[in-house]
Amino acid sequence: MLTESLALYQKRINFQLSSRIDALDDIDPQLKAAMKHGVLLGGKRIRPFLVYAIGEMLNVKLETLDSCAAAIECMHAYSLIHDDLPAMDDDALRRGQPTVHIAFSEATAILAGDALQALAFEIISEPIENITPSQNLAMVKALATASGYSGMCGGQAMDLSATNKQIELSTLIQLHKLKTGALICCAVQFAIIAAKVNEVEQQALLDFAAAIGLAFQVQDDVLDIIASTEELGKPQGSDTESNKSTYPKLLGLEGAQTTAVTLVEDALSALAKLPYNSQIIAQFARYIIERRV
Amino acid sequence: MLTESLALYQKRINFQLSSRIDALDDIDPQLKAAMKHGVLLGGKRIRPFLVYAIGEMLNVKLETLDSCAAAIECMHAYSLIHDDLPAMDDDALRRGQPTVHIAFSEATAILAGDALQALAFEIISEPIENITPSQNLAMVKALATASGYSGMCGGQAMDLSATNKQIELSTLIQLHKLKTGALICCAVQFAIIAAKVNEVEQQALLDFAAAIGLAFQVQDDVLDIIASTEELGKPQGSDTESNKSTYPKLLGLEGAQTTAVTLVEDALSALAKLPYNSQIIAQFARYIIERRV
Repeated sequence: MLTESLALYQKRINFQLSSRIDALDDIDPQLKAAMKHGVLLGGKRIRPFLVYAIGEMLNVKLETLDSCAAAIECMHAYSLIHDDLPAMDDDALRRGQPTVHIAFSEATAILAGDALQALAFEIISEPIENITPSQNLAMVKALATASGYSGMCGGQAMDLSATNKQIELSTLIQLHKLKTGALICCAVQFAIIAAKVNEVEQQALLDFAAAIGLAFQVQDDVLDIIASTEELGKPQGSDTESNKSTYPKLLGLEGAQTTAVTLVEDALSALAKLPYNSQIIAQFARYIIERRV
Repeated sequence: MLTESLALYQKRINFQLSSRIDALDDIDPQLKAAMKHGVLLGGKRIRPFLVYAIGEMLNVKLETLDSCAAAIECMHAYSLIHDDLPAMDDDALRRGQPTVHIAFSEATAILAGDALQALAFEIISEPIENITPSQNLAMVKALATASGYSGMCGGQAMDLSATNKQIELSTLIQLHKLKTGALICCAVQFAIIAAKVNEVEQQALLDFAAAIGLAFQVQDDVLDIIASTEELGKPQGSDTESNKSTYPKLLGLEGAQTTAVTLVEDALSALAKLPYNSQIIAQFARYIIERRV
């Protein structure tokens, strides 16, 4: 049931993203192709899944959620393009395919990221069915906060500062809350803003988002150690080689695995407080620690 | 009178920008310092000037215009940081000072640019005195369009594609309309949205913005040839060396100078259609071709 749901939303978001990029003028075909390459490199589409699945749980129409899902995935895609750059993580492959600066050029990759960030804000500022300008604006604000200095960019800067250094567990948690957690929370916020839920339910949903965001990162670190190169599409243990702090390093492999399980339990407890049918979303939370890629 | 006005608005925007950056948490002091370095590298603050001067002409309060001016200058500052990167124009100096990737690092410069783009949207999505959510949202949309693929980023991509190539005058004009013109028009749009002017006046203001945007670029090309290295704070004729197409190359030096004059005359004609006291703005238009830096 989760599998069908993931596939359905993946198909929907891929169509949304392709159509959005295809609809751009041919101002610079190279830049347009690079943006499309970056956005369609594949991936699990976790943020769009959260927008759609939580939005539908809260009785928001899929048509209303399309812009939210597309905006947040453009933002995520830009961050990956820039993270892969030679001056950052210097990754030539992502999911087995050449990264944008390899397939195109470094300059084009920088610009494609920049343009995808702007596109995210353009999409989320357009009129959306059943959404008032105030709701639109709240979405813009949530996206800007989650992606900027006090969110994703700040987290990535902390990550760079932490390379080749021993850091505390609390710093590692803060780093991931910003680097990946903020945008995952933003996906949930989009659904909350679209549905106008009360404060108690908002808090439960945001607690859920915070817990799965961190669980995902912890499990990624765990998988980085146990999965083979082939399965991940990138060299095994690349985080270890680059001497980045990871949960298994600070907690041991078993300690990290236990932490991931506890976080998913926290997420499920938060979900249980909600008066909605949260079956698929609960399955998704469990999938985080069951997945092997 | 223009000099006083420019100085006043420069002081105001510098205070706005400093306060905004200083108010950020100390998540990553390095990133914060790089953002501040990039934003406060100086410069003429043309976009904030246009927001303030045209806004005041249209009877909008300065307090209402502060967010617009700060947002647009953050966007401009981010574009300069990324344009200066080794993979782009590879400039070590800007206005006689080290560029962000020289003063900090390439990774930090990429992130500082990314975070400043997000900050621009964060600022413009916050509640503004006397501005409705619909007006806020219109500003977000204008800024996103002006800065993304169909604006600044697209223009920069065209510029990169045009390096070491002979291009047509029409392509050069289109390139500059996107690369620098779009954000200059956006500054004027901000004032228009804040003031709610009628369509005829809107058109005259946008015609003015388009003309001065292009005039600025043509004159920059002219100055690049005639000004000394010391005056510009960068090596003289650097555009010529990198084999970029410029107006003087396509039109000759005199032809380019005549074009700049004609564009400023177009701008003044557009202004003359407006029932406001446009004295300072007219002086500003003339200053574009009179300046030597």
